[in-house]
Amino acid sequence: MNAPASILTDVRTDFPGMLTGEGQPWHYLDTAATSQKPQAVIDAMARALGEDYATVHRGVYARSADMTRAYEAARRRVADFIGGHEEEVVFTRGATEAINLVASTWGVANLKAGDRILLSTLEHHSNIVPWQMVAERTGAEIDVCPLTHDGQIDLDAAAEILTEKHKLVALAHVSNVLGSVLDAKRAADLAHGVGAKLLLDGCQAAPRLTLDVAALDCDFYVFSAHKLYGPTAIGALWARSEILDGMPPYQGGGAMIDRVSFEKTTYAPPPQRFEAGTPAITEAVGLHAAIDYVESIGLDRIHAREMALVAQLREALGAMNDVTLYGPADTAGILSFMLDGVHPHDLGTILDEENVAIRAGHHCAQPLMEHLGVPATARASFGLYSDESDVEALLEGIARTRRIFG
Amino acid sequence: MNAPASILTDVRTDFPGMLTGEGQPWHYLDTAATSQKPQAVIDAMARALGEDYATVHRGVYARSADMTRAYEAARRRVADFIGGHEEEVVFTRGATEAINLVASTWGVANLKAGDRILLSTLEHHSNIVPWQMVAERTGAEIDVCPLTHDGQIDLDAAAEILTEKHKLVALAHVSNVLGSVLDAKRAADLAHGVGAKLLLDGCQAAPRLTLDVAALDCDFYVFSAHKLYGPTAIGALWARSEILDGMPPYQGGGAMIDRVSFEKTTYAPPPQRFEAGTPAITEAVGLHAAIDYVESIGLDRIHAREMALVAQLREALGAMNDVTLYGPADTAGILSFMLDGVHPHDLGTILDEENVAIRAGHHCAQPLMEHLGVPATARASFGLYSDESDVEALLEGIARTRRIFG
Repeated sequence: MNAPASILTDVRTDFPGMLTGEGQPWHYLDTAATSQKPQAVIDAMARALGEDYATVHRGVYARSADMTRAYEAARRRVADFIGGHEEEVVFTRGATEAINLVASTWGVANLKAGDRILLSTLEHHSNIVPWQMVAERTGAEIDVCPLTHDGQIDLDAAAEILTEKHKLVALAHVSNVLGSVLDAKRAADLAHGVGAKLLLDGCQAAPRLTLDVAALDCDFYVFSAHKLYGPTAIGALWARSEILDGMPPYQGGGAMIDRVSFEKTTYAPPPQRFEAGTPAITEAVGLHAAIDYVESIGLDRIHAREMALVAQLREALGAMNDVTLYGPADTAGILSFMLDGVHPHDLGTILDEENVAIRAGHHCAQPLMEHLGVPATARASFGLYSDESDVEALLEGIARTRRIFG
Repeated sequence: MNAPASILTDVRTDFPGMLTGEGQPWHYLDTAATSQKPQAVIDAMARALGEDYATVHRGVYARSADMTRAYEAARRRVADFIGGHEEEVVFTRGATEAINLVASTWGVANLKAGDRILLSTLEHHSNIVPWQMVAERTGAEIDVCPLTHDGQIDLDAAAEILTEKHKLVALAHVSNVLGSVLDAKRAADLAHGVGAKLLLDGCQAAPRLTLDVAALDCDFYVFSAHKLYGPTAIGALWARSEILDGMPPYQGGGAMIDRVSFEKTTYAPPPQRFEAGTPAITEAVGLHAAIDYVESIGLDRIHAREMALVAQLREALGAMNDVTLYGPADTAGILSFMLDGVHPHDLGTILDEENVAIRAGHHCAQPLMEHLGVPATARASFGLYSDESDVEALLEGIARTRRIFG
């Protein structure tokens, strides 16, 4: 273990959620589901809900103007974080809504019968179902890119599948089950080679990898704040401005219009066109604080740390005859496995008694479960607050489970 | 003034937002745009983001089960608050999304060319634009119910307009500009008399009137938490269960599915069918705390208090030759007016210097502004923390403005 353990271990005290109700260390290994929040985020939201609270984009009084600046500063912060421009960033409820927004607006406007969409076997339901819904609405059809033997999206196979009928390729940047990291630039080249757009589901990548949408060369990028140490109920869609400009509105209402009359309504330019109604004001402030926090530590350091922990866990589990490991050796903070003869839910329940929280289930990726031939896996996922004590507690819990089921 | 001023005035200290940055009283008269939050809501959200934080509906560990119970308890609290059943309550980003959800699912499934929708002149853009979008998609057409001379939705006129071609009537329960209160039961009888459904936009009613969707006999009811002393980024749609059961899904993703495969995906029953992705977890907890807070004071008392303040302000402004008042005499906490020769924005800016915050603009109701023959109005709107000092400060500010523009 050469990772700078001490520096990151110290951040644990920034997270009030990392203790049990009895004040014991909580071994939280479910950060891929949602991350704990640093006190800085909680405090920023409390201030925004309290002494700073006002609506945005509307009030003529100073506090509303201040809050509007804070809301737009959050948008700039997101843009800087992923290497985009602020006018290309739309706040959504999360990645799920962001993908639905693209499917319902860009998809409906650009897809027709005979067109094709390429997804992959390992996609999260949020990157499958919206495309199935738009396919049903437009007559477009879905192809599924298979995986390599070790659970990566097989871009060689994608190259074989893609044709000029493909208008969109939508892939997970990092798998939420296997932790596999996509070669996003190659995916972009393949998509663009046939004239298709590339959407990247960045839910698991945003908290783990330094992002630059320009270098990735994607067309759409989506992520959720609650997986990036920020609040629930907010996320972001980034899209190239020339694409966003041409997209019809998603939801109708206040703030997204230019002029409303019963005869004819006209719409505001992006990003406002896609933000109908009072937005997630205090959540945007919280997301800003979360990005500040994450960058104060540094994604390179977070990623190196999580990879080291995955390697440590993989090595220990790999030495056990009764454990099956899934996914490639070299993953971003996420590891799925099975303990022979023990349903993942039972494992999770026993681990919970030891203050170890893992995820057990299909992880909103049923097609991947079917591919793996299992109804569920156990998943341990690390965050920037994870350390060796979490790995040790998990291994001890597995040993105890084995004794119970012995 | 016979209202129980002292009891309600005391609650002001519960709201950290009701002081200026210099610690002076802030005369916040923009509660119709968004309400300030009591400390109880801020604290509930901080706990939910901190020591209680976990995802919902998924984890096998105890804290996730606890948070799931808290999330579903918030749904029950909303149901109790409006007189509905918990399985009829869908959490949305706010009223705007709730109306868009109904338009995009129920509307697309039930409207066709030749069908008609009845709205009114005073609707908020959020209750106009979604219907224009679904009308364009389905070929249905929109009728507009006119207002009485004093700014109430003219239900006598609605009775004349409605035919069996009308499938939906969508009206504001309380006008966000004029404060006019709809006779909702009569609107329901008229709608049902021709076989149409009634949707009520309850954004301004939920914080002011005791609600009972069964007694109102409506089919859909929507409101936003941030106008009900709760957090941003959450609101609710209530719909009769037999209607909700028949509605196709809105957004696709995790949590809203029964089974996903690339061959065929099936959906969960309501309300989960309409809540794709990780929901607004901590916001639901905050909304629960907000409803507890509001009910601890009592809507009857809040409404009586706000009506008394509106009456006081209306009487004072009505005695001024250079002030035009809009709306009926008997309104729910909201009053729009114009000071001759002073643009509402200028009035708002000068009032801001006196720590008085009003709204100036079209209030996301441009068709109503056109009807009133003005580009904008000044609007004072009260909340449960408002008192006579706010009315006095506003009147002093108007006097000062008159001197400046004199």
